[in-house]
Amino acid sequence: MTAYADMTAEQRAAELAALRKDYAAFQAKGLSLNMARGKPAAAQLDLSMPMLGLIAQTSDCFSEDGTDCRNYGVLDGIPEAKRLMAAMLDDAPENVIVFGNSSLTVMYDTLARCLDFGCLGSAPWCTLDAVKWLCPAPGYDRHFAITQAFGIEMIPVAMTEDGPDMDEVERLVRDDAQVKGIWCVPKYSNPGGITYSDEVVRRLASMECAAEDFRIFWDNAYAVHHLSDDASEQDQLLDIAAACAEAGNPHRYFKFASTSKVTLPGAGVAAMAASPENIADAKAHLTVQMIGHDKLNQLRHARFLRDAEGIAAHMRKHAAILRPKFALVEEKLSAGLGEVGVARWTHPRGGYFVSFDGPAGTAKRTVELAREAGVVMTGAGATWPYGRDPHDSNIRIAPTLPPLEELDEALDVFVCCAKIAALEVMG
Amino acid sequence: MTAYADMTAEQRAAELAALRKDYAAFQAKGLSLNMARGKPAAAQLDLSMPMLGLIAQTSDCFSEDGTDCRNYGVLDGIPEAKRLMAAMLDDAPENVIVFGNSSLTVMYDTLARCLDFGCLGSAPWCTLDAVKWLCPAPGYDRHFAITQAFGIEMIPVAMTEDGPDMDEVERLVRDDAQVKGIWCVPKYSNPGGITYSDEVVRRLASMECAAEDFRIFWDNAYAVHHLSDDASEQDQLLDIAAACAEAGNPHRYFKFASTSKVTLPGAGVAAMAASPENIADAKAHLTVQMIGHDKLNQLRHARFLRDAEGIAAHMRKHAAILRPKFALVEEKLSAGLGEVGVARWTHPRGGYFVSFDGPAGTAKRTVELAREAGVVMTGAGATWPYGRDPHDSNIRIAPTLPPLEELDEALDVFVCCAKIAALEVMG
Repeated sequence: MTAYADMTAEQRAAELAALRKDYAAFQAKGLSLNMARGKPAAAQLDLSMPMLGLIAQTSDCFSEDGTDCRNYGVLDGIPEAKRLMAAMLDDAPENVIVFGNSSLTVMYDTLARCLDFGCLGSAPWCTLDAVKWLCPAPGYDRHFAITQAFGIEMIPVAMTEDGPDMDEVERLVRDDAQVKGIWCVPKYSNPGGITYSDEVVRRLASMECAAEDFRIFWDNAYAVHHLSDDASEQDQLLDIAAACAEAGNPHRYFKFASTSKVTLPGAGVAAMAASPENIADAKAHLTVQMIGHDKLNQLRHARFLRDAEGIAAHMRKHAAILRPKFALVEEKLSAGLGEVGVARWTHPRGGYFVSFDGPAGTAKRTVELAREAGVVMTGAGATWPYGRDPHDSNIRIAPTLPPLEELDEALDVFVCCAKIAALEVMG
Repeated sequence: MTAYADMTAEQRAAELAALRKDYAAFQAKGLSLNMARGKPAAAQLDLSMPMLGLIAQTSDCFSEDGTDCRNYGVLDGIPEAKRLMAAMLDDAPENVIVFGNSSLTVMYDTLARCLDFGCLGSAPWCTLDAVKWLCPAPGYDRHFAITQAFGIEMIPVAMTEDGPDMDEVERLVRDDAQVKGIWCVPKYSNPGGITYSDEVVRRLASMECAAEDFRIFWDNAYAVHHLSDDASEQDQLLDIAAACAEAGNPHRYFKFASTSKVTLPGAGVAAMAASPENIADAKAHLTVQMIGHDKLNQLRHARFLRDAEGIAAHMRKHAAILRPKFALVEEKLSAGLGEVGVARWTHPRGGYFVSFDGPAGTAKRTVELAREAGVVMTGAGATWPYGRDPHDSNIRIAPTLPPLEELDEALDVFVCCAKIAALEVMG
């Protein structure tokens, strides 16, 4: 097929008419399909069912140090859970706090602590005239919702193939002490599937910040979420902790991770790693907020996943379910949109998303068309701070939840809608 | 035995010398006993073991409305868990949010929301010059730690047999708009075991408050924690929600409860009930902080406890374990301290504590003596805001954790220490 740009107006009109016919046919089917959220499929959840039976009788309830995990206590997590989450966070167990089932909550609460109490003795951020935050975009909508909720001014920063545009980041943090932090999904990013290059990690760790208490919120949500079993096709991420220590900024980062997309999103465990000083500071506040998180669930996880190799083995089972879905996305987008030349999309080697860009001014329309044909996508704009995509071009595709056959049909609808929207703006 | 006050100085000296001999004998035993925290005993935890096996295979994981509880979602709790916790909170399921394993966290976060965002449109409390809080004392140290952490000025209010001194409370809230709330453990209070009278509840609900957004933090931690199976020996508490609605102050309260001392402290579920407007407000903020709490654990609890009658039946099993312990406290204190006339203590019909008062200036010394003889008590002063007991007289006795034979010995030590401390101040 000819690229739309090379077609005559008449050819484009004919193409649009044909697509509208296809679209009407999709609508007539009364579909109800969903590519909106990064949720694991039921088959992936089944992989962790053996975990739920691991604690059944009293003798199962004791951690390796003898703690009765049924009772109160243990603020920062039982030893085997700290070790497990340290493996996922690429850090030492003593630098880890294990939490409840949501790393989003850990990030929200960590930011709330900065606002209410400051960082390692700095002024509470809520007492400042303004707080600003760097938001690599496209990015994760729930991150942006947190900073927005606290009235923090969000500054979008462009994403490149290697991570955030570091020239821009360095300029912004050097000149403005109100810029207190940055959201990062450094590996298989949401939604672009990008893994930060070593150079980007080093520049983040070493850049000169006007704010002494600048903090990198390092949401390593997809640390172990490769699509390939072949190590040469898996992304590697430089450890931000080591990079920050080397650069003489040892307290600059908070690392976050969870087992939400390893075991069960509704009943996993989350964790944070940070410098010993940051961890001590967090614990001093945490002890007021809670006595201890669910230690039985920590124990289930530690016994089920065991260690880094146990995690990797389990993730290979996920990958086997996810690979065909990502392959289908690539195949359908290439077949439907490759030649007409009106879109580009990412080819991630891990994570949960494909980031799609149509022509400027088409994202909202594409999502609207899809919805009216029974296919729910993440809202257009969601990948940008304040939900404002300046180009109205980016759409996040989340292919994990639907079974393959449903995904197949949903992608046909999506491709049709993207083409219609593109032709409509081309006029 | 003669009351100490009626003894001659010589008789008291002889008694003190004899007690010091007893004390030395206790010390020689190298004891390691603990009456410090309100933790259930191992035998109580065993009561809930069948719960852990209730979710073992995929077909067990669906809530009654078909939700796969393993996956993301459901911010406010699955329907059967909302119904269960509504039974405990004496409220309607639609007014309930079910959380994770800690009601302390729910209280901390609820207060943090008031500070960061205000209440139903009022100014965020963190923007005010000062916030003050009423703290009926003796009270719960972890409550006081929360208000202290947020820099809220705590005002102690005396506890009477019927609840807080309402003349004092009414005066304080009427005259000072900076007084924004009050901590209440309204049933089998920590540590006094007092249940608020209907009149106290009605006065709290109807009192005139200078602060329009005054909030009662109603921590009904011991709502179902009776010591007797006989209804006539169980305390009844008037519902604060109904009382507030009747008085035309429907948004004045937040109710909190958990299953920490019903099932498992380390792996229970917590909940809050409030007016529909307060619940909507909380959910609008909560949705930024988290996607959903552990729904599998909610499901375990709903299936295990079922309903109000299921809870009551389960609590009778706890009571059977706890009754002999509370009886032993009463027996030992009466036998050891009844006639010498230097102490009074509470006789609770439920809850987890006995509140003990020695002569002014003896609590710290008593706790210190006990510790040096190997018996750990809650720190003296802990039951007062800022840890400052103005009389240095109150000690919280937590008899639930130790097995009966250990409790027996710990109480012997405690009685000896209390007598020594009393004689020391009498000179």
